[in-house]
Amino acid sequence: MPNLDTIRSLFYAKSVAVVGASANPSKTGYVILKNILEGGYAGAVYPINPGSESILGVPCAASLGDVPGAVDLVVIVVPARAVPDVMRQAVQKGAKGAIIISGGFREIGNAELEAEVMAIAEAGGIAVIGPNCQGVNYLPNKLCASWPLIETRGAMAVVSQSGTIGAAMGGWAAEDGLGVTATVALGNNSGVPVIDLMQFFAQEDDVRVIALNIEGVRDGRQFMEAARAVLQKKPLVLLKPGRTAKGAEAAQSHTKSIAGSDAVFDAACRQIGLIRAEGIAEFYDYSKILSLLPKPAGRRLAILTSSGGSGILAADVAEDLGIALPPLGEEAVQALREKLPPQCVLANPLDLTGDATADRYRVALEALSAYDVADCFLLIFGDPIAGAAEMADAVRQKLGKPIVVAFLGGGEVEKQEVPLLIRAGIPAYPTPERAVRAIGALLRKS
Amino acid sequence: MPNLDTIRSLFYAKSVAVVGASANPSKTGYVILKNILEGGYAGAVYPINPGSESILGVPCAASLGDVPGAVDLVVIVVPARAVPDVMRQAVQKGAKGAIIISGGFREIGNAELEAEVMAIAEAGGIAVIGPNCQGVNYLPNKLCASWPLIETRGAMAVVSQSGTIGAAMGGWAAEDGLGVTATVALGNNSGVPVIDLMQFFAQEDDVRVIALNIEGVRDGRQFMEAARAVLQKKPLVLLKPGRTAKGAEAAQSHTKSIAGSDAVFDAACRQIGLIRAEGIAEFYDYSKILSLLPKPAGRRLAILTSSGGSGILAADVAEDLGIALPPLGEEAVQALREKLPPQCVLANPLDLTGDATADRYRVALEALSAYDVADCFLLIFGDPIAGAAEMADAVRQKLGKPIVVAFLGGGEVEKQEVPLLIRAGIPAYPTPERAVRAIGALLRKS
Repeated sequence: MPNLDTIRSLFYAKSVAVVGASANPSKTGYVILKNILEGGYAGAVYPINPGSESILGVPCAASLGDVPGAVDLVVIVVPARAVPDVMRQAVQKGAKGAIIISGGFREIGNAELEAEVMAIAEAGGIAVIGPNCQGVNYLPNKLCASWPLIETRGAMAVVSQSGTIGAAMGGWAAEDGLGVTATVALGNNSGVPVIDLMQFFAQEDDVRVIALNIEGVRDGRQFMEAARAVLQKKPLVLLKPGRTAKGAEAAQSHTKSIAGSDAVFDAACRQIGLIRAEGIAEFYDYSKILSLLPKPAGRRLAILTSSGGSGILAADVAEDLGIALPPLGEEAVQALREKLPPQCVLANPLDLTGDATADRYRVALEALSAYDVADCFLLIFGDPIAGAAEMADAVRQKLGKPIVVAFLGGGEVEKQEVPLLIRAGIPAYPTPERAVRAIGALLRKS
Repeated sequence: MPNLDTIRSLFYAKSVAVVGASANPSKTGYVILKNILEGGYAGAVYPINPGSESILGVPCAASLGDVPGAVDLVVIVVPARAVPDVMRQAVQKGAKGAIIISGGFREIGNAELEAEVMAIAEAGGIAVIGPNCQGVNYLPNKLCASWPLIETRGAMAVVSQSGTIGAAMGGWAAEDGLGVTATVALGNNSGVPVIDLMQFFAQEDDVRVIALNIEGVRDGRQFMEAARAVLQKKPLVLLKPGRTAKGAEAAQSHTKSIAGSDAVFDAACRQIGLIRAEGIAEFYDYSKILSLLPKPAGRRLAILTSSGGSGILAADVAEDLGIALPPLGEEAVQALREKLPPQCVLANPLDLTGDATADRYRVALEALSAYDVADCFLLIFGDPIAGAAEMADAVRQKLGKPIVVAFLGGGEVEKQEVPLLIRAGIPAYPTPERAVRAIGALLRKS
């Protein structure tokens, strides 16, 4: 698969030139250069700007041709009309990849200019991301040719037509302590095909889930075939807005995507096991759980909660999704009765009540670990429960089943515990409903 | 309405005793006392604990009878079996209100003990919140007899059967800069009826929305009649979990609530204009928008976005909810064409594209203000757009229509701008979908 080598040489570039680098902090050409430098990229970095001696302390070259060393990757931020010339220089310089941030091409009717650029790149053997995109952040190479700068490395590869949706995914993942392997913005997506990017991430060891946001596919059958192959290796979460007539109309003006029938597309997704997210929050939530947990052995869920009300909210969504909340069974209830204080409600949800500590969860989980009560556990921490992460991490092995957490109403303690949970590989969500819907997505894994 | 006076004297208590105050930071009796002191309560505070000289620097009394001054409000944190005696002392002391945090009553089968306590209180003219509850935070009196300590004062009154759901609402409101007027936890709700609390907040000038979380109602007809009267004055957002059979079963074990038919209840809510939230996130989102904005004059929405993809997600949800996205009209489009750069997509959603600044939004909104294009505006900031809050606040008056914001993918700038927006009275949401659903709730206002 030669395309994958091309992508690899783009993402693992040993030297990067930023054409259109700027000393003005409000310019994209400044932000990108700064993020590459601050992200800890170990290769050579060359700002290109004929009007500057140096930017951010790095010597500038007037053009690509003036760069002293080799240039593997060219990041292009100059106005659209100047891009064909830059691409010619990139070919001469022997670059292997180009990320075209600049807009002003097909999306505003300049299809010919875009075709010209792509023809030069193709003839010169340059793999292109973009144009009209928010760039690439590839953490295994510490190469953030994008914004914002996300440095937390995780197991989620985000491939997103929308730069904003990719940036939001990266931002939430950084804040959660979850991290990403990569965010790749597609923009007009005239170069490296989406299918090739999916295949590339499918065979990268780091990646446990591919999160794909697209507004349309050129060839539905080809896309589904490729997705099916990818799904043999990795789960694939898809956010494809434009479900409705109004949304499809907006998608058409945005990236000139042809949405086609959403119902037909949706049915095809279900058939091959592609997990479609209803909205951007679910896109993140589903990708998070799939980057951390294996699929449970069955659909039985046990809920432990310090908040009765939150347990009910979780039970409602579980029933909506056909996730079973089986009774715990007489023996398990008897074991819990011996260990827990009398106010606890020994059912499923198991209500440990408002004065529950992390230790009460541990006692209950250890007691339950002797019985086959469920395939997956949801722990709802509905109070400032200190030590929740440490407890859940410690009890996990004994339990031998996936654990998911909802943490809410916990003030400062919650803010400390949530990233600890996630870094321990336990997905945590801010509401019971989001946690249960994420479990629903995990159960849809192939 | 004498009940309202009773509630007022409870919330505006000039002196508070915490019976069961503790010097152990892991105890509720410590946390409550600390929050009352740190919240800036101006009245007299009396920790009651026979084993301590002073707690948190405040002199202790051995019992309520030993308190030198008057005690308006008694907060009770001692074990259930000791509560009748404390209540007798409270009556002797002339207290007007009691908040019973302690659990161990009806919810675990001790209905007789609870009845005994309530009979003492009733005979002594004491209004009771609880038992088995997370207390009361009443910001106009800076009285946080609850946890966590929320000090940001807003226009939302939260009345919540679940302490956790109330705490989550308060926590999110504080983080957002939105604030609350009060959070009142109901617990077993054996004292002051929910209906009275609704009526009290309906006539408080500070309050612009009442957020009510209950698991069941004793008398559906009476509740709906009271809610209808409240809705003449204030919007009422309801979260009532237990929609499904499994959820209703969990609600039954939690607070012994009789859920009744959810479909019948739901239909009654719709009939009287009560806005029901589907889950806890919507409970917050709907209460937020209703505490900040009036109802738009019609169902026409105009969307301005820097992120085409986010605009499509918003358009999808708008169509789901029957919110119209009308064309902007030829004249308005012409005006925009003269003012905006050529890459902008002059439709609804209006795509200002990825390099949009706050000033480009201003230019577009000022141009649109001359035409009657919509009844409400959604601004999606899908990038680190500095100055977004200042711009939106400044342009609002010229526009003369409600503005709602979705901010995502904005990194550090987003974290700075969101509380600024909310403090300026502009509701901001982390996803386009949540923003549009909130607008849907605003349109359901009576």
